[in-house]
Amino acid sequence: MKLISTSMIFENTKLYILDQTILPAKEEFIEVKSISHMVEIIKDLKVRGAPAIGISAGLCLYQFCDQMKSSEEFRAAATLLRESRPTAVNLMVVIDEIVKLSFEDGWREKVKSRALEFYHEDVKLCEAMGKIGAELINDGDGILHHCNTGGLATAGIGTALGVIKTAHDQGKKIHVYVDETRPLLQGGRLTTYELKKWGIPYTLITDNMAAQVMKEGKIQKIFVGADRIALNGDFANKIGTYSLSVLAHFHNIPMYPVAPYTTIDFHLKDGSAIPIEQRDGDEVRGVKGSFGKIIWSPIDSPTYNPSFDVTPSTLIAGLVTEKGFFSASDLCSGKLATFYK
Amino acid sequence: MKLISTSMIFENTKLYILDQTILPAKEEFIEVKSISHMVEIIKDLKVRGAPAIGISAGLCLYQFCDQMKSSEEFRAAATLLRESRPTAVNLMVVIDEIVKLSFEDGWREKVKSRALEFYHEDVKLCEAMGKIGAELINDGDGILHHCNTGGLATAGIGTALGVIKTAHDQGKKIHVYVDETRPLLQGGRLTTYELKKWGIPYTLITDNMAAQVMKEGKIQKIFVGADRIALNGDFANKIGTYSLSVLAHFHNIPMYPVAPYTTIDFHLKDGSAIPIEQRDGDEVRGVKGSFGKIIWSPIDSPTYNPSFDVTPSTLIAGLVTEKGFFSASDLCSGKLATFYK
Repeated sequence: MKLISTSMIFENTKLYILDQTILPAKEEFIEVKSISHMVEIIKDLKVRGAPAIGISAGLCLYQFCDQMKSSEEFRAAATLLRESRPTAVNLMVVIDEIVKLSFEDGWREKVKSRALEFYHEDVKLCEAMGKIGAELINDGDGILHHCNTGGLATAGIGTALGVIKTAHDQGKKIHVYVDETRPLLQGGRLTTYELKKWGIPYTLITDNMAAQVMKEGKIQKIFVGADRIALNGDFANKIGTYSLSVLAHFHNIPMYPVAPYTTIDFHLKDGSAIPIEQRDGDEVRGVKGSFGKIIWSPIDSPTYNPSFDVTPSTLIAGLVTEKGFFSASDLCSGKLATFYK
Repeated sequence: MKLISTSMIFENTKLYILDQTILPAKEEFIEVKSISHMVEIIKDLKVRGAPAIGISAGLCLYQFCDQMKSSEEFRAAATLLRESRPTAVNLMVVIDEIVKLSFEDGWREKVKSRALEFYHEDVKLCEAMGKIGAELINDGDGILHHCNTGGLATAGIGTALGVIKTAHDQGKKIHVYVDETRPLLQGGRLTTYELKKWGIPYTLITDNMAAQVMKEGKIQKIFVGADRIALNGDFANKIGTYSLSVLAHFHNIPMYPVAPYTTIDFHLKDGSAIPIEQRDGDEVRGVKGSFGKIIWSPIDSPTYNPSFDVTPSTLIAGLVTEKGFFSASDLCSGKLATFYK
């Protein structure tokens, strides 16, 4: 068995992760050596993107479950993985489902089978979201995109970027404005890399130019991913998404998060309780990549570094999932909970 | 005679410019060798900030006017300087006034004298703006600041940052949130450097975090500089300012540009005709500094790089000049033109 996606390879029960921290300059896969190695890989953002984190964590449990002496040991390992990042819910959904199976007879085979299912399911979820979202895109649209939500962030073609790719593959003439997405430059380093590979026309901008390109009439739609969605449609996503939603609202530009059901937190009524990961200040003081680590501010600069923010559903036009399009009023009236029940 | 400011030294008729492109890691002054050398220094942003560009260009004309064979040659040199950057109006104001004098008898001495006047006047303008602007600041205020508008951008304590310094010197407890200001990081590299020297508490953030800190209630006022102000109060400033004005408007946070009369373009009714400088794509593809030049995106990434944007006066609370505070309705009713007539 061999699974190959943009961000990971699973072959002969070994998991290899494309190191996204050194893209686009270097394309290097890392062989995952242990559970704690995988925790480090996730924390260091070598794998990132809510779906990709969950799926690769599942495959990592597949890889190491035969080495576990007991299901208790397996669950301890799963807990370590579950805690590696706090905001994205996909990781928790995958781990919780797999952990449930570990209490059953023949749990090892069930764990492996479910981990594979998550992978294959995500490929299909991406395709479904792509088709549904692409219906919102018109020929000639300028589309603003934040962070990276493509093949690097999922097992398939991506969430928001999958929508963009699908519209492009349908022959629609579109142009993508790519927010560079400081501090970690997922737009500048990763989305540009994917759009270039796919041959989709794009223009890279810094995050603070987004308002200006909106004002100039260059943007007709905004598509972003999500890391956790509450039942009222509030959603956590990469820092800067909330800012875009306010700018979109002011300029009357529809903004759509795109995410599969695995990103919906069915325990959350609204976005206020979503924990926001705070990361190291050096990410704000400078930049890290294939070129090494640079600090451009005074080295002791006090910083604030929330990795995500929460966008209220009142500022978006609707949500694209694999099941369909939920308008802002659908979200507001609680349709997400009833639909997925 | 010796003039010393943060950004320049003028001694024995020689002009030395602090190279702002390698701050804060290295503090190096460059001796200006010729008019074309000064043009290069301005284009490379080794000196930057609308007032500092104008004043240093004036002192450069002082330095070299004795070497000019004729006033025609002098005016040709002045034209070169005038064209080095297109958006900030201060440079044009200084050059135009000095060029006028070059038609008079004894023009060399008049040129020198006027160049010095611009320098000394700016120090006083900064002090006056500082006092007027500080009245808007309350004890305990969180203040958001974009780009750099301090001693590095002027001959004195600065415009917006001068207001902040004055409030701090008055004993008001304030906290400054510093937008890093991509692509050139004037906030991350320069404003942090000045606030640290002054002992003013601050927190560095990336530009896309500004909306989030506003939402969290951390920001009570926003102060920014300006590169050109139209008679209705529309103003050009560093890219990202327009974005802040929309976010400020949404969060009901008052935003104030701070600038002296030399930044007002008395020929402009509104901001629509302000030319916006487009700069090299590599600024967006990566970063440059004391550490060298880095490109983190695909090297052929198409980019958009407007160095400035224009904020409509309808989105600000008012303008601070050396003469007083002009509210949004003052600006709207054309008070700027009548007041300065």
